Amino acid sequence: MNKRLVFFLVFFCSAGMLFSRSGVRTEWSFPDIPGYITLTCDFHSHTVFSDGTIWPTERVEEAWSNGVDALAITDHVEYRPHKQDVIGDLNRSFEIASQSLSNWPILLIKGGEITRELPVGHYNAIFLTDANPLDKQNYMDAIQEAVKQGAFVFWNHPGWTQPGTKAVWYPEQTELFNRGWVKGIEIANDREYYPEAFQWCLDKNITMLGNSDIHGPAIVTPAEHLNMTLVFVTEKSLQGIKDALLAGRTAVFFQDKLMGREQYLKPLFENSVRMGRAQVLVEKKGVWCVEVYNPLLFDIELKASTKSDIQYAEHFVLASQKSVLLRFKVPEKFTDKEIILPFIVQNFLVAPGQGLQVELKIVKE
Amino acid sequence: MNKRLVFFLVFFCSAGMLFSRSGVRTEWSFPDIPGYITLTCDFHSHTVFSDGTIWPTERVEEAWSNGVDALAITDHVEYRPHKQDVIGDLNRSFEIASQSLSNWPILLIKGGEITRELPVGHYNAIFLTDANPLDKQNYMDAIQEAVKQGAFVFWNHPGWTQPGTKAVWYPEQTELFNRGWVKGIEIANDREYYPEAFQWCLDKNITMLGNSDIHGPAIVTPAEHLNMTLVFVTEKSLQGIKDALLAGRTAVFFQDKLMGREQYLKPLFENSVRMGRAQVLVEKKGVWCVEVYNPLLFDIELKASTKSDIQYAEHFVLASQKSVLLRFKVPEKFTDKEIILPFIVQNFLVAPGQGLQVELKIVKE
Amino acid sequence: MNKRLVFFLVFFCSAGMLFSRSGVRTEWSFPDIPGYITLTCDFHSHTVFSDGTIWPTERVEEAWSNGVDALAITDHVEYRPHKQDVIGDLNRSFEIASQSLSNWPILLIKGGEITRELPVGHYNAIFLTDANPLDKQNYMDAIQEAVKQGAFVFWNHPGWTQPGTKAVWYPEQTELFNRGWVKGIEIANDREYYPEAFQWCLDKNITMLGNSDIHGPAIVTPAEHLNMTLVFVTEKSLQGIKDALLAGRTAVFFQDKLMGREQYLKPLFENSVRMGRAQVLVEKKGVWCVEVYNPLLFDIELKASTKSDIQYAEHFVLASQKSVLLRFKVPEKFTDKEIILPFIVQNFLVAPGQGLQVELKIVKE
Amino acid sequence: MNKRLVFFLVFFCSAGMLFSRSGVRTEWSFPDIPGYITLTCDFHSHTVFSDGTIWPTERVEEAWSNGVDALAITDHVEYRPHKQDVIGDLNRSFEIASQSLSNWPILLIKGGEITRELPVGHYNAIFLTDANPLDKQNYMDAIQEAVKQGAFVFWNHPGWTQPGTKAVWYPEQTELFNRGWVKGIEIANDREYYPEAFQWCLDKNITMLGNSDIHGPAIVTPAEHLNMTLVFVTEKSLQGIKDALLAGRTAVFFQDKLMGREQYLKPLFENSVRMGRAQVLVEKKGVWCVEVYNPLLFDIELKASTKSDIQYAEHFVLASQKSVLLRFKVPEKFTDKEIILPFIVQNFLVAPGQGLQVELKIVKE
Repeated sequence: MNKRLVFFLVFFCSAGMLFSRSGVRTEWSFPDIPGYITLTCDFHSHTVFSDGTIWPTERVEEAWSNGVDALAITDHVEYRPHKQDVIGDLNRSFEIASQSLSNWPILLIKGGEITRELPVGHYNAIFLTDANPLDKQNYMDAIQEAVKQGAFVFWNHPGWTQPGTKAVWYPEQTELFNRGWVKGIEIANDREYYPEAFQWCLDKNITMLGNSDIHGPAIVTPAEHLNMTLVFVTEKSLQGIKDALLAGRTAVFFQDKLMGREQYLKPLFENSVRMGRAQVLVEKKGVWCVEVYNPLLFDIELKASTKSDIQYAEHFVLASQKSVLLRFKVPEKFTDKEIILPFIVQNFLVAPGQGLQVELKIVKE
Repeated sequence: MNKRLVFFLVFFCSAGMLFSRSGVRTEWSFPDIPGYITLTCDFHSHTVFSDGTIWPTERVEEAWSNGVDALAITDHVEYRPHKQDVIGDLNRSFEIASQSLSNWPILLIKGGEITRELPVGHYNAIFLTDANPLDKQNYMDAIQEAVKQGAFVFWNHPGWTQPGTKAVWYPEQTELFNRGWVKGIEIANDREYYPEAFQWCLDKNITMLGNSDIHGPAIVTPAEHLNMTLVFVTEKSLQGIKDALLAGRTAVFFQDKLMGREQYLKPLFENSVRMGRAQVLVEKKGVWCVEVYNPLLFDIELKASTKSDIQYAEHFVLASQKSVLLRFKVPEKFTDKEIILPFIVQNFLVAPGQGLQVELKIVKE
Repeated sequence: MNKRLVFFLVFFCSAGMLFSRSGVRTEWSFPDIPGYITLTCDFHSHTVFSDGTIWPTERVEEAWSNGVDALAITDHVEYRPHKQDVIGDLNRSFEIASQSLSNWPILLIKGGEITRELPVGHYNAIFLTDANPLDKQNYMDAIQEAVKQGAFVFWNHPGWTQPGTKAVWYPEQTELFNRGWVKGIEIANDREYYPEAFQWCLDKNITMLGNSDIHGPAIVTPAEHLNMTLVFVTEKSLQGIKDALLAGRTAVFFQDKLMGREQYLKPLFENSVRMGRAQVLVEKKGVWCVEVYNPLLFDIELKASTKSDIQYAEHFVLASQKSVLLRFKVPEKFTDKEIILPFIVQNFLVAPGQGLQVELKIVKE
Repeated sequence: MNKRLVFFLVFFCSAGMLFSRSGVRTEWSFPDIPGYITLTCDFHSHTVFSDGTIWPTERVEEAWSNGVDALAITDHVEYRPHKQDVIGDLNRSFEIASQSLSNWPILLIKGGEITRELPVGHYNAIFLTDANPLDKQNYMDAIQEAVKQGAFVFWNHPGWTQPGTKAVWYPEQTELFNRGWVKGIEIANDREYYPEAFQWCLDKNITMLGNSDIHGPAIVTPAEHLNMTLVFVTEKSLQGIKDALLAGRTAVFFQDKLMGREQYLKPLFENSVRMGRAQVLVEKKGVWCVEVYNPLLFDIELKASTKSDIQYAEHFVLASQKSVLLRFKVPEKFTDKEIILPFIVQNFLVAPGQGLQVELKIVKE
């Protein structure tokens, strides 16, 4: 047996790596935007140390495989149904997860979920230094402790268990946001989306997040991805992420939709879609075409948005990782070299129910 | 909200079920054979209670989803790398897994893996009543204890860590099999296959098994299934399985191959493949055809086996869950209504490297 | 080279077979129903001899591959845009297609499409003996000629080019149906569905059909199947199909929905779905479960239909070629061995917008 | 109905476009290389005008959909089995195909296949101006006519119908190449690969091609792509392609392998694979890692090629459109910022059986 293989067996296998799925990573292909690097983050996950069903190292490995750049381990502070069997303090799941950093290059964030009945609800504190002191009788004391540690605290799944999963804002939240202790809200969690919360974030200048809240293994199929928070950072580091969260530089990726502020979604769209050069198909009828490539792992749905003297199809779908052909008809005696076609991107939402307005600039070959 | 939905939420969700993948099960479609029900079994699995990375309830849920009829939880008796965090005795993982039986209808078997260095190796004891007494200094004492409890004991992955994964039989195994304490061998484990062990089982009348030895989440794709032991039982029960193991009524399903004794593989093939009626395609040239349907989740590869005055293609593949068309040419003045075409089934192995011989009986419409 | 391979090359390849896709056939797995064999039929297809883009033999091969049992070649009688290049009379495409019967066992039907502007519309005549005499100036003469030949004539795509693809019944149709010349209507064609036409078929006792109207190659993906007419025959033959059409024994398979009369859809459902034995999951809470297998190539969607003292989920989806687990809760002191759960099958339509009512009979193990 | 939709229906549908598959195009993502644009070309295809089974417009549409940049229609000059039904001269299939250029932006090349028994064989002449004069009794006359028209002529499938599909070079080929009339050879055609022909191209400085020779519809699945010739052009035009063919600037894409001269394959590899920055995983053990992304639609297989004091896995597979993690171990006291890891790319062949040598340059973060 040669040296290399022996090393491989001895070194890596001794490190306990499972090669069943190791080493292959889905890339979501979200582009960077001017001034910022785009990171895919999941700020809400559980392990066997609270009510999850997988070991912390497995959580890290599967996050890397699923294309997550930064992961927060946020086991419940108070709800530990496995505690008869799984012991260790509130920092332990993060400690064990950290062992995986010798296998997988991921940004790992220490967190915890402060868990109360409604109307208080659940709050994730991330970038903790010590999760143990968060175990307080009074939730205000717990959140204050997190803030004292410099944590970023956000309100989880504000519509969970509410009728119709409609998010409800109580006086308790007014207090927490007014004090500046809580600075973000999950507008999507697991399979739920809270349009009311999306609007609150826009109106009150709150950071919006979308997280998996994953408890079991993450079964990711082409048809079903994990929620993620896109974070626009100036450097790829824990500090970079924290700064971006404080500055509200996020967007939410939920069920093949992107939700966020126009200032981030617009360059995200523009840097994603790749336009070919326009070509004339039928000279005398003024029919032109252009190939449009969508590198993202989900379809982009476009709808013609305003009147134009250019004629083109009302809807068209930029199929994932494919080119599509957009045909259009210019007026008689059209001589411009450049055309602007206005569209609404129906699954890039800049407010509940409101698609991003974009203009496809098409340049003739 | 109506009564039914409330029940659904309150009753089932309180039971902690994840609906992400719950409730949908892959059916392998192995047919029963004359006199026996065919069960798909995995007799080797781990949880966080030894060196696995998932919680016992998750192991049960995913086994059900992956089409496993009977699952043994076989955490290592001696190797418990998580013991600093995960406490509880050797029966605990089975106890917790048993909670899932209120969600998933599966046959759950209490087991344990007796784990020693080579040349002893690893042994699974299944159908234990109490795993705790297996924790003995001397492996012979441990195995004797398992036998005393009425367990079925088998030798795991006999080629693991051996050069070229070639299985090696040591005097230790001679002793264990001679005493009648160990009655089975894994001829396939995880991604390894041990042809030597397959031959030993045939020569020495040992029960052959193929198991997943799964530690992490089971990622099952169309291209990669878990190993399973097919067990041919007279009743679908724990006792039925144990009786079948003692009688050697098993086959091994490994990487789209079936391995086992001819007496089981032959009826398994015959009850799988469905032949249509033969039709004449070109009367004057004697060209006939027949549609052959393969209901199994993997392709069956056939090779023409002997000379015949019927002419037909040398190889043909029965694509999974498809019909294929077999064309053949009968001699001039052929008047029979029935034709026998002999084949070797290249991925139904009755011995290492030796495919099952079958005859396709074709009846004219 | 051995004799068998030589035969294979010389005989089959000389027959011009393309092995690229040859020989593998999708089976839709529709079951037979009491008294009838279920056939999958496509009664509307085109070739290069009218405005299609593939050669007749290719049309036959792909129909066989796509699981079609009977195919009608129905090139337009009057609309022959390729006629400058493709010559031959109106029977020629059928003649050429018939050459494929020496390769593929399919029932091939001679047809033609009588093509007029609205309000007349298009009519397929199938089971023709000679398509040439259908080329008449007056459409009534053309249809009468078809009838004289013993053809079954049906009205094609009654909503095509109508606003909103809403089918419109004109006096011309009244005349044709009153005379008994036209006996069927396509309620689905290509990607269009005409609920009005479905209702007409129910109200006026007209045979309903759903056909592909395919012009190009049939690209069949898991996500998109060709429309088909299911025909319930007493014998698998051209005559058997014709008799069934005359008797209205059909159903329509369109975009993962079945549409038809209750008398056919009910046994089709009952013979498709396979129920396991019910098992008790939690004795003291009265929780039972049953595994339900769906062998069809599309999901079946069930909705609980009436009040019951058995509690169960309001919706559940029988995933294609999977088992799903149906859990339910029986009342206290329930002692019956057998339970009836009433459901609406939402994608088996017995009238526009109206699902089939079924009762799942569940027997305790 | 609004103006835009009316335009859509009236204009495009009148153009006879099938939207079944129209408008979505697979992008093979082959990168450009220094000095050249990379085009995907298929120089060998048939239609109903010779022995193909699809109409010329369909051939163009499916080529565009399958990611072909340039397509040659090369119906047989002499072999026209459909001629009883399909009339028109030898230019007609190209003329009809050209109608599709008002729908699909593709480079369409007029060609023809000169077809003789062995030892002469088949020759494609592309960039013809008039195919009719190629219909000569003597093949030398036919080829000379093609050359006179400025055509590029290449030898098709040199191993077809030869024993074991082994390519054989006869005196006839010596004559044709010596005269400079024939300048290229298909080293792959349909499902055949001719390693001998690959070597001839290298030894004799002949342009190598790989083409589909497609006759029926192109069924392209993830598991099976059409053969293509990659052509490295200075401008995307017919002239650009011709110049490149004359200069031998090609590579062949066959069954997930690339074959060609090192000078083209090397930059193709280098511009495909995207390396992240190396990160240190375990400081004290010297374990580093780097993420490697493969944008191509097929896996790239790497094998460690030479001894190195850096330890790393012997084989690793760059999964298609995924990142994989390459871990390696640097020696003690290693202080460089940059590492070179030598590999053989096993499915980029620079000669029969000989993989491309590459060096992955890894830069520390």
